[in-house]
Amino acid sequence: MHAGSLFAIGGAEAKLRRRNVLRAFVAEAGGADARIVVIPTASSLGVEVVEVYRAVFTALGVSTVVAVRPESRAESYDPDLVARLDDATGIFMTGGNQLKLSSFVTGTPLGAAIHQAYHRGAVVGGTSAGASILSDHMIAFGSGGSTPKQRMSQLAVGLGLIPGMVIDQHFEQRNRYGRLMSIVAQSPSLLGVGVDEDTAAVVRQGHLLEVVGRGAVTVVDGSNLTSNAYTAKRTAPLLFSGATLHVLPAGSHFDLATRTFVRHVTPVPPDEVREVQAAEADLRRLARDIASDDVSPANYARRLRRGRQHRPSEEAQPTAMVDPQ
Amino acid sequence: MHAGSLFAIGGAEAKLRRRNVLRAFVAEAGGADARIVVIPTASSLGVEVVEVYRAVFTALGVSTVVAVRPESRAESYDPDLVARLDDATGIFMTGGNQLKLSSFVTGTPLGAAIHQAYHRGAVVGGTSAGASILSDHMIAFGSGGSTPKQRMSQLAVGLGLIPGMVIDQHFEQRNRYGRLMSIVAQSPSLLGVGVDEDTAAVVRQGHLLEVVGRGAVTVVDGSNLTSNAYTAKRTAPLLFSGATLHVLPAGSHFDLATRTFVRHVTPVPPDEVREVQAAEADLRRLARDIASDDVSPANYARRLRRGRQHRPSEEAQPTAMVDPQ
Repeated sequence: MHAGSLFAIGGAEAKLRRRNVLRAFVAEAGGADARIVVIPTASSLGVEVVEVYRAVFTALGVSTVVAVRPESRAESYDPDLVARLDDATGIFMTGGNQLKLSSFVTGTPLGAAIHQAYHRGAVVGGTSAGASILSDHMIAFGSGGSTPKQRMSQLAVGLGLIPGMVIDQHFEQRNRYGRLMSIVAQSPSLLGVGVDEDTAAVVRQGHLLEVVGRGAVTVVDGSNLTSNAYTAKRTAPLLFSGATLHVLPAGSHFDLATRTFVRHVTPVPPDEVREVQAAEADLRRLARDIASDDVSPANYARRLRRGRQHRPSEEAQPTAMVDPQ
Repeated sequence: MHAGSLFAIGGAEAKLRRRNVLRAFVAEAGGADARIVVIPTASSLGVEVVEVYRAVFTALGVSTVVAVRPESRAESYDPDLVARLDDATGIFMTGGNQLKLSSFVTGTPLGAAIHQAYHRGAVVGGTSAGASILSDHMIAFGSGGSTPKQRMSQLAVGLGLIPGMVIDQHFEQRNRYGRLMSIVAQSPSLLGVGVDEDTAAVVRQGHLLEVVGRGAVTVVDGSNLTSNAYTAKRTAPLLFSGATLHVLPAGSHFDLATRTFVRHVTPVPPDEVREVQAAEADLRRLARDIASDDVSPANYARRLRRGRQHRPSEEAQPTAMVDPQ
């Protein structure tokens, strides 16, 4: 049932340099073979925002980027528009007003097509509003601040691709601890998930969350919560006692079904990745040389020195490092 | 050993109206009989700030307010200055720079006199810097933001009136979730306590915390924490998984020793208190009338009406409400 994956970005993902979040989205959608549908309905500058994402996805090697832009609920019933999702491997919803997006899409044939794409194996996600809409219960709007207060935030109905959680975005940058907790205080069965900017919560198999990007994903689990949210007066600070808190930076893995932290793998910086790849290439050459039977460590070092001379763009390195002398 | 109480205010407590926090401090210090020592060393406007608190405490009925203002570490060794704490029932440290306060006071005879006053039964506390300094491990400074990051905050040594916790202030208003968690990430044995503005964490018997005021006290318990703070790189977002979170508004009681929520009692608004007191006075009068044996409910209502006429400042009320007719 969960063939695809979900991609909830906290907004303001890098588009020019260090595009780790959008690069991960493209990889999840199939890389060069990806066929990405951009839905910019949440944005007021829908046309322009499509061009931005078309440029970024193209720069990241994607050959096909298609815009699907319903500007009313009626348009989400248009069979021609809905058909454009038929062979999508990725669906990307932009930021903006999630209530506009959800009220135009949720419960329409376009909404159903997004579900079908997800169950067929596509990655479905987006940034900011496009992240909030993924869950069944969606934060519609609310105010900032660390301390949860009564009536601080409002729920509406999202796409429902994932049940039992509520997704907030711009989490650190707009100080949204309070509004996320105010939702969980009223509905402790919902897992509260707050995504920082330039950061993504990637959900695979419907429950395995991995964090990608520059910030963190904050998970608030109210399983054992004591709260007075059912009785507190308007704007009063809420009692919110006994929640379990997880702040998960890039490389963290979390199981949404069991609500448990799985592991953290320190992401390796791209520079180190290139170094390791170069070292692996050297090792492969060494293995070939050994196989071709004309090798000793000293021979290998000499050959390496000769090889280096053919690649003048590389930095000169002391050959003593690979010389057993 | 814990005869006194501690009073950690998150800064910006109301001084003109709804002075619930400072009123609670005065009550804790003995009300009209209180003898309050104000230590304004953290403030750069020490003289002026003493006059502010002298005015407020006097307005709240305190007869004796004394200033003790060391402006160097040497002055905290001055026996005359230290002697002014001898019969204090309350010690109030103002806001400002907690490192100035702690470096001038901690480990000096003045610091020892504060400990003695506390163990003798005085209430010791303060606002902002004056709250931070109460614990053994003190947040010296740090930067704002929701997500904990490596090197976001710095510890120094506080007065040590309470062990095992670290107190942050202006918690909601300056978005200090991140910095409090960054401390607990490195030292999970410390209980992180964040106090909002115009709010106080009152600690009695060395471990029973009660919340007073307009905001909330946030408690971060890292007993079961998984973190990468021992290895994360400078400024990287920290893994902070499995903490227990408590947001405690006014009327909440929390046991710092067992790290458990005790109960929440909805504070009654002052208007309701006055109404109940008036009703109680009426009931007492009724009881007296019954005792003096000339009473029936109709008699009582008539008498009440007559009583009302002598108090013309009160609003006219329909007497039918107390008339059994």
